[in-house]
Amino acid sequence: MAIFQEPDPVRPDAVEAATTLFVCVTCRVEGDASEIRAGRRLHDALVGALGADPAVRLVPVECLSACRRPCAVSLTAPGKWTYVYGDLAAEAAAPVLADAARLYGATADGLIPWKLRADPIKKGAVARVPPLALPGQTP
Amino acid sequence: MAIFQEPDPVRPDAVEAATTLFVCVTCRVEGDASEIRAGRRLHDALVGALGADPAVRLVPVECLSACRRPCAVSLTAPGKWTYVYGDLAAEAAAPVLADAARLYGATADGLIPWKLRADPIKKGAVARVPPLALPGQTP
Repeated sequence: MAIFQEPDPVRPDAVEAATTLFVCVTCRVEGDASEIRAGRRLHDALVGALGADPAVRLVPVECLSACRRPCAVSLTAPGKWTYVYGDLAAEAAAPVLADAARLYGATADGLIPWKLRADPIKKGAVARVPPLALPGQTP
Repeated sequence: MAIFQEPDPVRPDAVEAATTLFVCVTCRVEGDASEIRAGRRLHDALVGALGADPAVRLVPVECLSACRRPCAVSLTAPGKWTYVYGDLAAEAAAPVLADAARLYGATADGLIPWKLRADPIKKGAVARVPPLALPGQTP
């Protein structure tokens, strides 16, 4: 589990820009015959895990084209790196993702420090895209 | 090969917003022992394939976290869906990607019509992320 840290008070700009968490609600997980799809269950569990947190905007999406690695989500915010994560357990992944969204929101650039990333976040990276205003070559 | 179409003149807004094509220059392709990495060769070939086209901004990046599916690139523009493509041949993929970047630039939302997508674009989708201002549930 990631450790949630309060946003750094010296970076109020990073807190003001809301984090968006897109969740693919059409993802199915192999062998899961549930009537409600895994992606939808993950989304619904995130509603509970995030509560009324105004810093994270949860948005269901019909496909993130990460169909080889369900369940899939994306974390994004203006001016930050966008991340796509896959291979996520359905509703069981909600607490880790809620933590990750808050950690992401506390960064200035979207790069969550490696040691704070929970295992599903470390292992589930599908892709990342720089912000349009890329500050040089960020490795 | 995709068919290049001139941008629709009734949509000047779609043309004004420059397309950004991020290219991972650290991607290696399995079995390729060349001194210059495959991703760098793809980037360099794109410099030639795009020529001086002012509508496409080519940006080298050190990692798109799509390391399972090299070579990898991303197409993005303000207000459009962002796409990440992988499994691309090195320099051989440059003409198809240059076409795709121009087709992407001619769309209002980043969704290139399926019939205009070349095979490497159809098969290489790694992920896509909606624009922040998502107009409802776009499938």
